[in-house]
Amino acid sequence: MRNIKLVIEYDGKDFNGWQKQPTKLNIQGEIERAIGEITGEEIELNASGRTDAGVHAIAQVANFRTCSNIGIEKIPIAINSKLKKSIRIKQAEEVDMDFHSRYRCKRKTYRYVINNSEYGTAIYRNMEFNLPCKLDVEKMRKAIKFFEGEHDFKGFKASGTSSKSSIRTIYSAKVLEQGERVFIELTGNGFLYNMVRIIAGTLVDVGLGKIQVDEIEKIIESKDRTRAGKTLPPNGLFLVKVEY
Amino acid sequence: MRNIKLVIEYDGKDFNGWQKQPTKLNIQGEIERAIGEITGEEIELNASGRTDAGVHAIAQVANFRTCSNIGIEKIPIAINSKLKKSIRIKQAEEVDMDFHSRYRCKRKTYRYVINNSEYGTAIYRNMEFNLPCKLDVEKMRKAIKFFEGEHDFKGFKASGTSSKSSIRTIYSAKVLEQGERVFIELTGNGFLYNMVRIIAGTLVDVGLGKIQVDEIEKIIESKDRTRAGKTLPPNGLFLVKVEY
Repeated sequence: MRNIKLVIEYDGKDFNGWQKQPTKLNIQGEIERAIGEITGEEIELNASGRTDAGVHAIAQVANFRTCSNIGIEKIPIAINSKLKKSIRIKQAEEVDMDFHSRYRCKRKTYRYVINNSEYGTAIYRNMEFNLPCKLDVEKMRKAIKFFEGEHDFKGFKASGTSSKSSIRTIYSAKVLEQGERVFIELTGNGFLYNMVRIIAGTLVDVGLGKIQVDEIEKIIESKDRTRAGKTLPPNGLFLVKVEY
Repeated sequence: MRNIKLVIEYDGKDFNGWQKQPTKLNIQGEIERAIGEITGEEIELNASGRTDAGVHAIAQVANFRTCSNIGIEKIPIAINSKLKKSIRIKQAEEVDMDFHSRYRCKRKTYRYVINNSEYGTAIYRNMEFNLPCKLDVEKMRKAIKFFEGEHDFKGFKASGTSSKSSIRTIYSAKVLEQGERVFIELTGNGFLYNMVRIIAGTLVDVGLGKIQVDEIEKIIESKDRTRAGKTLPPNGLFLVKVEY
């Protein structure tokens, strides 16, 4: 038995999210099918975490166990040949049998991309959230610093979701600007459901002057979802890196 | 009567090129229809030049004449509201009646984007040409310099196309590298049919060692299409700028 770790890029637009579902096209199911066609086994693919419908991954990590003796260097090409072009296996590596993509994950980095131009973008419309009103990026830069460190992010998760604890640590939080694009980048030990999209929505409210920079600390402390900003749409969100 | 100049972004993947055709979805036809719905007129839109099926434009320029007195600042929003999201009017400006997008064009800039990674990209697959073999970018940088200046580009146009003259001037020709991406950028007074895609294909052959850097001059002088490289696919090509 071998344990194989994959690094995977996918275009979230084409799928109803990572997680396997019986009737809707999903990334996990597609890759499990492709691996099954190659190994002849029924395999189970564990990712570092789910991503929602429309959310992209530049480098999702997932692992599976197999008895197949296919050469490790042939695995990406073999799986890719059975997949749609909207999913690409970028890397395969043999890992210890006890490696688990989710439980062993130490840090994850997400990026949220905002197109802050008046009429939006035609070409990148599925990879950027278009916001025509001009953002004050300096204010967003100050505000995002309050998210760094260990906090109870109860106010920044989708209602109705049950995680044991809503305490997470953000190691790094940055707002970057490049031409008409604004990038929000967060690295942490884990993220609650919709957490990045709600933080991004809150920072947008800061950039629009609806929330003041010095209110952020209190909003986090309040643990009150209604005080944070809107959940931004999935098309601007990228899972950028998963570290072990 | 007014003459309106538009700057237009579009995702070439969704269309059979710029030019109006009776049965296939095309960019010119879509925008003419949208303007017609707003002005109630049958208008004719002149672009700086056609782009082929799959080719993108970041800033195509086109103009039309109208008797409508709609405010110039309202034109982009009004037209965009009648268009698919894969076309965006980015700017509208009232210009002299004798302005013509094609005849008055002085310089055009095209960019060709190559994804030079082993397994390609899932997310940007319609905006980059994937080439798994490693390119020698230094050689490509030296080779592209031979294209600068005035040349007869007869060997770098699609066969069967008839232009009066195949002499064009390239003002600037650059190869740029950013991570796994290689960009070929050309600015000139005009380009023959498929010229950028054939130059890009020739440079790829240089990067792969199939053509030597010092052969480029002779290949241009030979005016022989068979000596130049392949026409690269349209998905990597962007019309970046049109200057007047």
